[in-house]
Order: sequence, then C-alpha cells, then structure tokens
Amino acid sequence: MSHNTFGHLFRVTTFGESHGPTIGCVVDGCPPGIPLEVADIQGYLDKRRPGQSRFTTQRQEPDAVRIVSGVMPDDATGQALTTGTPIALLIDNVDQRSKDYGEIREQYRPGHADYAYDAKYGIRDYRGGGRSSARETAMRVAAGAIARKVLLSGPRVRIRGALVQVGPNVIDRSKWDDAEIDKNPFFCPDAAAAVEWATYLDGVRKRGSSCGAIIEVIAEGVPAGWGAPIYAKLDAELASAFMSINAVKGVEIGDGMSAASLSGEENADEMRASTDGSGPAFLSNHAGGILGGISTGQPIVARFAVKPTSSILTPRRSVDKYGDEVEVRTKGRHDPCVGIRAVPVGEAMMAIVLADAFLRHRGQVGEGSGRWPFTRPQTP
Amino acid sequence: MSHNTFGHLFRVTTFGESHGPTIGCVVDGCPPGIPLEVADIQGYLDKRRPGQSRFTTQRQEPDAVRIVSGVMPDDATGQALTTGTPIALLIDNVDQRSKDYGEIREQYRPGHADYAYDAKYGIRDYRGGGRSSARETAMRVAAGAIARKVLLSGPRVRIRGALVQVGPNVIDRSKWDDAEIDKNPFFCPDAAAAVEWATYLDGVRKRGSSCGAIIEVIAEGVPAGWGAPIYAKLDAELASAFMSINAVKGVEIGDGMSAASLSGEENADEMRASTDGSGPAFLSNHAGGILGGISTGQPIVARFAVKPTSSILTPRRSVDKYGDEVEVRTKGRHDPCVGIRAVPVGEAMMAIVLADAFLRHRGQVGEGSGRWPFTRPQTP
Amino acid sequence: MSHNTFGHLFRVTTFGESHGPTIGCVVDGCPPGIPLEVADIQGYLDKRRPGQSRFTTQRQEPDAVRIVSGVMPDDATGQALTTGTPIALLIDNVDQRSKDYGEIREQYRPGHADYAYDAKYGIRDYRGGGRSSARETAMRVAAGAIARKVLLSGPRVRIRGALVQVGPNVIDRSKWDDAEIDKNPFFCPDAAAAVEWATYLDGVRKRGSSCGAIIEVIAEGVPAGWGAPIYAKLDAELASAFMSINAVKGVEIGDGMSAASLSGEENADEMRASTDGSGPAFLSNHAGGILGGISTGQPIVARFAVKPTSSILTPRRSVDKYGDEVEVRTKGRHDPCVGIRAVPVGEAMMAIVLADAFLRHRGQVGEGSGRWPFTRPQTP
Amino acid sequence: MSHNTFGHLFRVTTFGESHGPTIGCVVDGCPPGIPLEVADIQGYLDKRRPGQSRFTTQRQEPDAVRIVSGVMPDDATGQALTTGTPIALLIDNVDQRSKDYGEIREQYRPGHADYAYDAKYGIRDYRGGGRSSARETAMRVAAGAIARKVLLSGPRVRIRGALVQVGPNVIDRSKWDDAEIDKNPFFCPDAAAAVEWATYLDGVRKRGSSCGAIIEVIAEGVPAGWGAPIYAKLDAELASAFMSINAVKGVEIGDGMSAASLSGEENADEMRASTDGSGPAFLSNHAGGILGGISTGQPIVARFAVKPTSSILTPRRSVDKYGDEVEVRTKGRHDPCVGIRAVPVGEAMMAIVLADAFLRHRGQVGEGSGRWPFTRPQTP
Repeated sequence: MSHNTFGHLFRVTTFGESHGPTIGCVVDGCPPGIPLEVADIQGYLDKRRPGQSRFTTQRQEPDAVRIVSGVMPDDATGQALTTGTPIALLIDNVDQRSKDYGEIREQYRPGHADYAYDAKYGIRDYRGGGRSSARETAMRVAAGAIARKVLLSGPRVRIRGALVQVGPNVIDRSKWDDAEIDKNPFFCPDAAAAVEWATYLDGVRKRGSSCGAIIEVIAEGVPAGWGAPIYAKLDAELASAFMSINAVKGVEIGDGMSAASLSGEENADEMRASTDGSGPAFLSNHAGGILGGISTGQPIVARFAVKPTSSILTPRRSVDKYGDEVEVRTKGRHDPCVGIRAVPVGEAMMAIVLADAFLRHRGQVGEGSGRWPFTRPQTP
Repeated sequence: MSHNTFGHLFRVTTFGESHGPTIGCVVDGCPPGIPLEVADIQGYLDKRRPGQSRFTTQRQEPDAVRIVSGVMPDDATGQALTTGTPIALLIDNVDQRSKDYGEIREQYRPGHADYAYDAKYGIRDYRGGGRSSARETAMRVAAGAIARKVLLSGPRVRIRGALVQVGPNVIDRSKWDDAEIDKNPFFCPDAAAAVEWATYLDGVRKRGSSCGAIIEVIAEGVPAGWGAPIYAKLDAELASAFMSINAVKGVEIGDGMSAASLSGEENADEMRASTDGSGPAFLSNHAGGILGGISTGQPIVARFAVKPTSSILTPRRSVDKYGDEVEVRTKGRHDPCVGIRAVPVGEAMMAIVLADAFLRHRGQVGEGSGRWPFTRPQTP
Repeated sequence: MSHNTFGHLFRVTTFGESHGPTIGCVVDGCPPGIPLEVADIQGYLDKRRPGQSRFTTQRQEPDAVRIVSGVMPDDATGQALTTGTPIALLIDNVDQRSKDYGEIREQYRPGHADYAYDAKYGIRDYRGGGRSSARETAMRVAAGAIARKVLLSGPRVRIRGALVQVGPNVIDRSKWDDAEIDKNPFFCPDAAAAVEWATYLDGVRKRGSSCGAIIEVIAEGVPAGWGAPIYAKLDAELASAFMSINAVKGVEIGDGMSAASLSGEENADEMRASTDGSGPAFLSNHAGGILGGISTGQPIVARFAVKPTSSILTPRRSVDKYGDEVEVRTKGRHDPCVGIRAVPVGEAMMAIVLADAFLRHRGQVGEGSGRWPFTRPQTP
Repeated sequence: MSHNTFGHLFRVTTFGESHGPTIGCVVDGCPPGIPLEVADIQGYLDKRRPGQSRFTTQRQEPDAVRIVSGVMPDDATGQALTTGTPIALLIDNVDQRSKDYGEIREQYRPGHADYAYDAKYGIRDYRGGGRSSARETAMRVAAGAIARKVLLSGPRVRIRGALVQVGPNVIDRSKWDDAEIDKNPFFCPDAAAAVEWATYLDGVRKRGSSCGAIIEVIAEGVPAGWGAPIYAKLDAELASAFMSINAVKGVEIGDGMSAASLSGEENADEMRASTDGSGPAFLSNHAGGILGGISTGQPIVARFAVKPTSSILTPRRSVDKYGDEVEVRTKGRHDPCVGIRAVPVGEAMMAIVLADAFLRHRGQVGEGSGRWPFTRPQTP
C-alpha cells in the first residue's frame, strides 16, 4: 500500500498526529447512493474511544466526527446519501497534554518508534507519539464504518471481533458467546475469562506494567470469489491490513501458525453438497475461509497479536538523540493493554479490505459470480 | 498489491501456469548499472528446483532461465549491466504431465483453490493447478535474485532463510549453525533435527500424507530508516509478501504471536550507546528489527507457516463442479512438505520487499539517512 | 502510470528492446470467459506491421504473436477462453540489424532519446533505439486487441482511427468515408487526400527527410458514466495514454486547442430529449464525448500529433557521449512518417483506456448505470 | 491516476465540494525537513483567488488555508519543518450561495458535468457544481506550493505560467516580458495584449457570454534525467495533470500539435558542446525539454487549452433529469474566462508532476545522475 493510503478501489487515506489540532481521513471510491450519517460512524468510534474503563488510557477524547464532503441529501427523502466522490471525515483533538512528553523529546523510548522515525526522517513529532500514535486508528474505525455500509449495500457481510487472549490468558473457546462481547470492557466472548482478565489487568496497571493480546476477527456472509491471485490474495491484503495496526507482530488466517503442525488429512476442509444451493457445505474451516487467495463462502477468520504497550513506568535503559545513555520511564496516560481497543480497529480493517475486494471483484468479473454448481454438458 | 504485480518502485509482475509452455516475470524499476547474468539467478532457482531429493516432488524441471530484456553489455568490459528498463525473465516448462490431472478437471480437491477459482471466474486451468500452482514461485525466486543484487549495490544486506519446524518437530535454537543450512535437503540449521526430519518425512511420504512447516527469514545489514508509516509499514509489506506465497497461513515479525504473552518490561528492546557509531546497540530484538513500520538497524526477523500439502493419497470427501459428491484422492507428483522449497521463496520475497523499501526510502529522503546521533544544539 | 505498466484494473505491462530476442507484454485483470485466439490479435498487429508499403520502414518483422498464459480451452466447445489470470504475449524479433547502429553507440541523434537515456541511467541500449524504439508499440497493439474483446463482451464499443493530417496536408472532412480508411496505406478517410499524400511522401522519402502527422481516434458505443473525477478523468487517462506513444507532442479531446477560440454559446453542446431512450440527444459534440471527466454517451473523439521521424539522412549537429561535437546522419531503416503506423497504436491505447474505465466503473457503481431519465417524485 | 489522488511518491489527494463546509487535501510522501508555513502556500492561493478583478467570478472566498498535520517546529530555530508524514491542508468555504442554483438541481447545463455525473452515480451534488466545480483547484494550488518547496530543496526549479491566448486573441511572442505577468489581471506577458484583452473581456462579460484561453507553463532548472519510459513518461504525466484541470480540452508539449507540420530537419533540436559543463547546449527546443519521456535539461514547455466557461446567460436548449426538454440560462457568479485563474493551477500541476518525478528518479537512480560527458575508455 502506498504511504498513508490503503486500498485500491475503496481507498482510505489518513492524516494527523496525536497532538495536532485535527485528525482525518479521505474515503475515496465509495459507491454512490449509500445512506451515511454521522451516527453510522460515531457508534464504532465510541467502541474504540479511550477513557471508557479503567483498563484503557484516561485521555478524554469525545472523537466527535464530522463528514465534510461526499454526501448529499436525497431529493425526495432528505436522507443523506453518498455521492461517489471523496468522503472526508474530521475529528478535532481536544485533550492533548503535550507537556507530559517533555522528556521524550530527546529520549528514545524502548519499543516505540522514536529512534526509527529520527533515523528515517531526521525529525519527528514527539508530542504524544505524533504520527506513530495509535490515535491514527480512530480514522481507521471511522473509515471502516463506511466500509461496513458498502458491505451491507449488496452482499450481507457481518463482521465481529473479539479479544481471545490477554497476556498469557486465553479464552475457553467452548464458552464463546457472541452476546458477551459487548457486555465487558474487553470485547471478550467468554464471560468467565472476562472476570479473570479484570483482576489480571488491575495488577498489570497497578504495577505500571503492560501486556499483549490476541484479537480475532470473523467475517460472515462473504460470498465465494472475492480476492484474487497472486499478490492481491485476500489473505495477503488482510495480513497487510492487520500488520499495519500499531504494535501488531503476527497475523494468522484460519489455523495460522499452528497449521504447520497438522497433517494433510487433518488440514483438508472436506466438502459436501449443500442443501441450500449457496455453495458447497464445508465440514471444517482450517483455511479460514480463503483458498488460493480467494474467498470460499465460509466465514473468514483472522487473528493478530498485539505486543505489550511500550509505555511503562519501570525504567528501561536507552539512548537519547544525541547518543547519550539514559534511563526512560514513560509517564503520560497509556493503555495497559492496547489490544483491547484494537478490537474495533481490527474489525474496521477487515471491513476496509473486504469492501475493496468486493469492488475489485465486481470490476473484473461483474455481478454474476457464484455460478456453482455448473450445468453438466449434454452428451448425445 | 495489484493483481499479479508486487512492489511500488521495484516492481515484479509474474505470469504463467503450471502446465503452460512458459512462465515468466517482468522486473520493472531496477536501478541501472547493476551487473546481472543468468548465473546470478540460476543458483537461487536451483535451490528451489523440484526433484532434488526424495523429499520434494519428482517433477523434473531444469528451470533454465533466460533474460530477454533490460540488460546490455558494458562498452568497456563486456559485462552485462542492467539498463533501468524492464527485465523480463522466461522459463520454459518441460515436464508437464497434464494427463495426471484428468480427474481434477471436474473435482474440487479439498484444501486446494479449485472451487474458489471456479466460483470467482467460472473457469479455471486445472492442468497442474494452473495459476494456483506453486510453480509461480520460481519467478519470485528469479526476481528475488535481482532484488538481492540491488541490495548489494549500495547497502550490504544479507538474507538467509531456514526451516525451523517440520510438522510438529521444532529445531533446537541453541544448535543453530548457519553452515548447516546448505548441508541437508531441508535448509535446516540444526544438524540433529535434520536427521530426525528425514526419518519423519520418509514416514509422511510413504503414507501418502503431508505435513506443514515454519520458515524463518533473516535480513542483516538493513540500515535504520527503511519502511514508512502507516499503510506502507515495512512489516505490513512483509506480511503481504509472505502471505501471498502458496499455502501460507501465518506471518510473524520478531516475537510474533507470542508477543501477546510478554510483559512490557520483557518486550522492551533496550538500547545502549554503540561503540561503532552505526546506531544504538540494542540489547534484544523482540521487535524483529522493525518499530513503527520502520527498520531499526537490527536484523529483520520474520517467520511464516506453511500448511500441509493439500495433495494427499488418502481419499477425502468433496464435490465436483456439477454439484455432485465425490471422493478425491490426489495422484500426480507432489511435495510431501511444500515448506522445504518455500525457504528460497521466502528469501526472495524478503529481498523484493527490501529492494522496494530501499528505493522508496531513497526517493523520499535521499541518500543521507542514518543521521543519529544528532548534534546537540549549543546553549550560550 | 507506473513505469512500464498502464491501467488500474485492466493492466498492461510491456517489456523488450528493439534488437533484443523477444518483446512481450502481460495483460492482467482481464475478465474471464472471453474468447481469445491468436487470430484476434494478429490482425491488428498486421495493420501496424512494418514493411507493408514503401511509406514505412523496410524492416521485415512478421510480428507473429504467441499467447503463453491466461487462456484455456472451454470444456464443451474447445474454444480458447480467458481465465482471468495474466495473459502473456510474446513476439520474437527476427530482423534486427544492429550493425546499422554502430555509429549511434556513441553519438546522440537530435530528436531521439539517446542523450536523455544516458543522462538518466548512465547506460543505454543503443541497438535499434533499445527500449525507446517504437517497436514497443507492437505490444500496445496486441494488448489493445484484448481490450477490444473486453469492450465487446458487454458494451458494444467500436473504435476506429484515421490519419487526418500528414505534414501540412489536412484531409477534407466533408469527404470523410470510413470505408476508405483500409483502402490506402495511410489509414486516410479521404480518398483524394490519400492520392496527394502518396506523392508528398514519396518526395519526403526520396529527400531522406521525414514529416509529422495527426491521428484521430473515435470510440462509438461508450455508455454515459465511464471515467471519474478528478485525477482519474477519462480525458486525463486518454491524454496520458496518447502522450506516452513515441513522438507524440500534443493531445486533443473534442475541439481540443481550438476550443480556446470559441464563445460559450458556440461551445455548448445542446441537448434534446432522445427518441430511443438511450440518453439525451446531443446537437453537437465539441466536448468530444466527455464532460467533467465522464463519458456522456456521445462518440469519444481524440486526436494526437506525432512529430516528424527524428532519423533523417540530412546531417545534423550534435555531440557524442564523451562531450565532443559531431555531425549525425541516421542510416538504418526508418519510417518517413511514423504517424502512419501510429494509427493502430492510437486505436489500441483508446481501447486499453476504455477497457480499464469500463471495469473501474463497474467496480464502483455496478452494472446498473445509465439510469436517465429519473422518475419524477410524486407530489401529493 | 487513482480517483482523487495524483502522484506516486509525492501524492496529492483532494476532497470537498463547492458549497460544502470545507475543502482540503492531503500531501503524502513529502520529504522531511523542508521549511513550510502558511505564508508559503497562501501567496499562491491569493493568485488564484476569485473576486480580485472584474474579469473573474465575484464569489468572495478568502481561501485562508490551515496546515493541520505533517509539520513540526524545529527544536533549535522554531521554524516549522515538514516531518515526512502526511500534510493535510484545509480551507473553509465561506461564501456559498446555494440558492442561486435552485434551477440546476433538476436541469442539465450544456457543457457542464451535470448529466454525466447523474448518468454515472445516479446522484449529484448540484450546489455550486459540487465536486465538478473549479473550486477543487484551490487545493491543487495549495499542494503545488508544497511541491515548489520540494523542487527548491535540492534542484533549483523555477516554474512560471502565463496566459498566451484569450478567445481568438494571441499574444505577440516577440513582446514576451516575464515582468509583465504579474502586472495585469490576466497573467499576460505582453503588455499591449493585456490592454486589448481587457476591452475584449469587458465585452464578453457584458454580453453574459464567455471565452476560452490557452495557458503556457514553463519549468526551468529541471536537470536531465527526470521521467521514465514508457507509461511513466514525463510528458504523459504532464498531459494527465493538465487534462485533469476543469475545462481543459488540449495539451501540448514543446511544438505540440504544430509539430505535425514540421520536417524532420526543422524539428531536430541540434546540440553543441556546452561551455558550462551542465549538459549539451541545445540550439532549439521544439521538444519542449522532453525526449523519450525524459527531461533533457532544457526548459520544459507545456500548453493547455481551456474551453469557454459553460455558465452563460444566453438560453441554451437542454433536458432535465426527468427527460423533459428545457431552456437553461445560468445565473450565479461565474468567470467569463476560467482560463485566467487556470494559470496558477497549471503552475501547480507542473510543480506536482515534477516533484513526483524528482523523487521517483532519485528512488531508482539515486542522487548521482547527470553524468554526461562520460569518460572515454582508454585504448592501449
């Protein structure tokens, strides 16, 4: 992907720094005629918004989004519709406290991008992490909300994310209950795990420490045929999308890394004739809904791992920009586990990738895909 | 990435099917003046070439590559040099046996892309898997050889890959010896593991089964500053590159998925002043050499998991293109573990990503990066 | 456009030099299921092929094209169909005479790209002009033949080009007869002009001189709605496409440069209700079928000017690569007017741009465009 | 170019409608460390700003630009510097009068994009022309101001535009005086012509009519070697850039369309050894500074023609969105000759194309271009 733009036909460009006046994005290539109001976006932003529980940063950002272009009230109904031209979204930053960052102006925080930015550009906006801050992900969530509307305009794609691991603590998959996900501050589908995580994270937070997490994102209702060989594989696009999220170090599709340990017999997702004519009935989903880079009609299942927040209170050894050795202890307001707020971000990136795949598929092949089963040629 | 093209400034486009007359690639955007001969490419192709041990497919392809454009003998020395125009590489297929594939013309092999291609395009080249065959990776290796030459033309980047897991069998990292990698048919850096794997894989092969694998690729000598925020992060490009390889289901950078289990203290790669002036001395490399999407000067460490070969002798339940239920048993010649030959492919993709990152960085920032340490401003 | 690739969804990448062994192209993103055989391409190549009259270069190139990937015989009919994967086309060069170019190895021919290539790359393939030779346009014509098939697969777009000016000699537009275009060696729609041009060009040729030309390309049957604001305007894509052809110095849409001299009243293409329901009936076409970067349903009319062939027998003053002053007199075999063979090239570029616009439009908007007239909302 | 984004490494994305709250752009890929303040941009915006003379629209827009991201005060000097991250620019619209456009809500103005937008999207923002308004060009000018700073950061490129024709009235090139360009409201380099144009345009304006114009843009100081074969030719990029400006119907490089009438002898730009070692001394510039798509070191000379403003008071026949025939007479505030304000827009597009070409060239070839003359190999 190019610079700060993601996508080919459905394209998202973001801009803005953590402590600048405004962050924003441009969503270009959106199909016309799709109802779009602030409320469609704000709900997803509120899920990602900081300061909602003691487990996320206490920075208070209302994240009130404005739509400044690309929509138009319908003549007849007055309903705002997309026009097909670029949709620009803006969010003003309101709770910057740049003075918290006085020390890191010169010091490189271990695990952060401070040194890397300086090495690349010779200059960096250190205020709140500048462009490298996870604040950028608010615009991904906003753009993702538009992508979801695209995915509902023709296909009926439903995307849901969940936290499946916090630090070393893994959910019990037998207890997965979608209804639980919005009932706890962790987007955890296992009610019992959520209770344990609260205790665990209180400990992490009180120690001034941090922990990592694993997020799972599932898309249901994706028709067979999206994606494309070779370098435009749907899983390659998803890998790029998830790995571009701050602090992500690993991406898995279907069985992911553990696919290495399977036998060919175990790994084969067998198929039977379906009863509803929508495609073959798969008997398992080790592939995570993607074969040869193309969706199979099964749920698309992806996971990504977020490393522990690099901002911790324990002093760490480092250097400053002048080459001197220092000890760094990061004050300021931080998430003890950035993985929590990465759940809506992961959902958004899944939506953006799929909206783009939908339009690209329709461009090359048209609207008549999903032909299976084929008609057997007549033999005389 | 667009369709069958990878990269932005250093761009690789591949074409060709498993049983077509010719496969090829176009490497566009290569810097001029770089010595390039067939021998520079052929050595890497030979590492990937099938039929070299009993552990890979017995298809016999000499993979003799021709350079048909983009090079020119130097006036003075006669040495072939790149001219900056597109370099096209061609390899003729010689050992196609399409009759082996008569049955899969109508049947969908579980784990293969057969159904997905039919669902997308309404037509597929079933002969040897057509475009979805790993045969395409020969051109990645060829293009990767050119990328390596680019990486040696200015920076001194060294890339090496190794197999670190076969089925459930993991190497002992304390026994890692680079010199072992080319001494066994598995690219295994642990001599003892290689012996065990031979036995294990003989069993897999004799059962007509298959197994997965994990490949690790390391790039040393990458200067700090390559890559870019946000969607062009170096790790996002690598994730896309590796996930685009056939059968890959997971990608990790540095600690990868296990980063989720670390504490912030453990995960922080501390820094000390370096003695050689080349950048900070990092005390660990959990980040895999990339922070904020930008290289740090540490070795870049990536891993990817390859699922077991889907072509197995054990019958599996499936459907055919007409909607009827069938049992599929894949004859033909196949790798019991495609992960082995994925090692040179992984190296090639690392090289392609880095060559592109090198040129893009030089485009935006010029040749004067790596400024650290900065001069401290004088205070009067 | 990126390097040697043109297009976004329908993408053409070309490679090869004038005196290399092979030239070729990769057509990526072609819709599947389109009948495609060598004969579909060869006919257009034959129109462009050199050595067919005394008015073009005497180099003898059969331009026999091979399709090496991306097609597959249909199960039932045996007819070759596109599969949606990259279509690679190869043409072997057979009549290179590199010894003709011994002198220009060191000398810069005025009007040619010799100096510019050396200044950019520090090296150039001087043999027959290398990559800067119009030989590359053979692959445009081949790719354009595929684009035409795409344009006939859904819409019914007809593209025809003609030479409308040779040197200072302009056709009489009142005598335009499409049937004449293929009856003379100039693609001239005015039979009387063609006779005069033959005499004129014989003079040019015998003097060892050359002349320029203007080509007009018209596309009929393009539905309203293709193209897009702002930087993807259909006319901007056409301008890029035509200006990328060797020796082109100007591009016009509709009235082109002379639009500057019109009044607003003259320039307005008035509309009336159509009788056939296909869109408004336009009363004129000053706009050349494009408004706001989007097709209007009228014929798309474009023109481009080709400068005189730079290879002439009259000595011209120049310098060589070592900085010494020289006199250059270009022997070898050349077209006295490259504009003639630019006609099929211009048609091809029009087809490529439109095929890409067709797919991109279908991607964003789907197949239901062309809604006009709208239903008037009911007022109670 | 993709949708609303122009450029490859130096990328400009614009958004916003004529009567929306805000228009803006994102400039991505800008090199770091370049001084950038509002004043650097505002001066160019003021040249394009409407309402400055009786010859342009009376809409009053202060066009006060804000820089909301991508810059950072230098530690030592406090001077704002680019950081290498996306630079977002915003301009609030203040003088919208949407009620002027009540009628065109349903009517299609001849020569405007009204029908084309409706045919494509099924919906359009008719208020002030929405996205098709020339208001978008304000952001081109703003982005162009940043491109100029890039072009001054290494090379010393100077760009100047001028109006060379208004309606049928052409300047006398022998009277060209750069100093005159900023002394009249037309950017006219010929003082006598400017006086005549004022009279001519008063007549046009009083009749409620409009006229076209031709703009010439010249870039001096561009080193040899920028641009690239084949589809990335510098002239192809310029053609795309200029043709994407509202109302442009023709683009010329160097001699442009009239190159068709030259003989090969006339067209050849002869070269002599230069006295200053900066490249060959060209004796003429028919090529407009570009050969083979690559700059030659001569001034780059381009022209584009703007059609007459389509908004005129004289009634024109048309249809409305419901298929009924209507007469359209465009009230509202309009430029009698949009070509005037297209001068700074043309300069901006030249700057954007060249900044991108500069970065792309540096990416592929590095900073060591311009090698001519080469050292002659020693013969023993």
